[in-house]
Amino acid sequence: MKQVSTIDAIRAEVTGLKSQGKTIAFVPTMGALHKGHLSLIRLAKEKADEVVVSIYVNPEQFGPNEDFGSYPRQMEDDLNACEEEGVALVFTPNDKIMYGSGKKYFRIELDELNAHMDGGSRPGFFEGIVLVVNKFFNIVKPDYAVFGQKDIQQFQILSRMVEEFNHDIEMIAGPIARANDGLALSSRNAYLNDHERKAAPGLYRALKYVEKQIRDGVMEPGLLLKHQQDELEAKGFKNDYLNVFSMENMQPVEKLKSGKKYILAGAAYLGKTRLIDNIILDL
Amino acid sequence: MKQVSTIDAIRAEVTGLKSQGKTIAFVPTMGALHKGHLSLIRLAKEKADEVVVSIYVNPEQFGPNEDFGSYPRQMEDDLNACEEEGVALVFTPNDKIMYGSGKKYFRIELDELNAHMDGGSRPGFFEGIVLVVNKFFNIVKPDYAVFGQKDIQQFQILSRMVEEFNHDIEMIAGPIARANDGLALSSRNAYLNDHERKAAPGLYRALKYVEKQIRDGVMEPGLLLKHQQDELEAKGFKNDYLNVFSMENMQPVEKLKSGKKYILAGAAYLGKTRLIDNIILDL
Repeated sequence: MKQVSTIDAIRAEVTGLKSQGKTIAFVPTMGALHKGHLSLIRLAKEKADEVVVSIYVNPEQFGPNEDFGSYPRQMEDDLNACEEEGVALVFTPNDKIMYGSGKKYFRIELDELNAHMDGGSRPGFFEGIVLVVNKFFNIVKPDYAVFGQKDIQQFQILSRMVEEFNHDIEMIAGPIARANDGLALSSRNAYLNDHERKAAPGLYRALKYVEKQIRDGVMEPGLLLKHQQDELEAKGFKNDYLNVFSMENMQPVEKLKSGKKYILAGAAYLGKTRLIDNIILDL
Repeated sequence: MKQVSTIDAIRAEVTGLKSQGKTIAFVPTMGALHKGHLSLIRLAKEKADEVVVSIYVNPEQFGPNEDFGSYPRQMEDDLNACEEEGVALVFTPNDKIMYGSGKKYFRIELDELNAHMDGGSRPGFFEGIVLVVNKFFNIVKPDYAVFGQKDIQQFQILSRMVEEFNHDIEMIAGPIARANDGLALSSRNAYLNDHERKAAPGLYRALKYVEKQIRDGVMEPGLLLKHQQDELEAKGFKNDYLNVFSMENMQPVEKLKSGKKYILAGAAYLGKTRLIDNIILDL
């Protein structure tokens, strides 16, 4: 495994692999790798000959009051984990390499797709993700890019970017990796104290409960969702959203229809830690 | 020479050329090819093993009251010209291939660089250019892209896009091709009647006059420019702008400094035809 930090170096390495006729799958990460990331790396290895992982905590996707400063960083552990998984290249740029030091003149703006869910709660979040991933795609030029379903809105927005910007890349979503008690794995779970950690799977249980009711025929789940939010509050969560969204444009949907795909998704705080989770409904 | 119209086809052809170890230079055009375009194609051939030309009148870069409908289209002549110049591939997509038929969620916005010159006079013009060229770059994935200096603001903005988006492409500017009387060649010159055509080189003469005065030491050319605008109006032009702009951020500059680069540029109408021209000042 090689670790490189400059754009010229990663391009040279990728060009080298491609000139041997190898296909490339790219797994962009912010480090603090857990079993969820490792499952994405394994999925990447199934799809392509070689895997490139990026480790970069992208400042552009954090709001001024968010956890950019405290976001977990553990480069040595991450590199060891990548090596064990048979990753070919790890790209570890710094901010200067990614964004330079001068003024940025270009902005990529999004309509509608980021109006609700995490986009609604975190202004600038998806603009920051789109900015950095568009750059990564042009730097690494992979054949495949692998992202987790946990960040379903990210996956849908980036898939749309690939389409509208004509990136020659196949987007692949990896399933949500969960702890034994159902909690979706996340680098931010490290923030939870013991008490919060015990309560944390409540979000997934709420989603599972709503999912079952919908599969049993509840096609207007508004009251049901409201009730589950009350239950979560009673368990110590502070709700951000818990709702059903259109798979196409990620707008909230009040009345579900058979034959359609939806995202049942929730975000809630336990203390200062923001948890997200989702279930895809193919009705 | 091959003409292809779909994204899959152009990608397959370019991949074929690259797999033979060939470098690619890309010359995006809106067709109606004149000697200016041909000089860009020749420059492209000097830089790379093979040349790809796109011919596509991009609706996104025309305003509602501009000349999209009447813009000259002469595909057969253009293809013959490309063949004579030894172009390897001509990409001739239609609107559906370039933009699909559904809603577009992504916008690329620009700060400052498009506030003056043609960007100031043509709202949405450079957003439309950036939109289509970003797509072309991801579709064709050339090693070089060649644009004319006549559209100097376009060249500067796209160069900045290449930098901020990390396109792995070297931008090359070709010098302005001119008629014997100095008029910058342009597909829109076809709109000029005999009378207008005779007056048209006046714009370049005004720029040359101002250039000489600046080279002779006039470092605050405001009055000089105003006077030249009056002269142009007297010759039947309707002025849009005639000014000196910063090479870096394309803002108007009142007081010039030695050791700096500027763009001395003008745009003016003759009848309904909008002419542009420029001279780069390296003081």
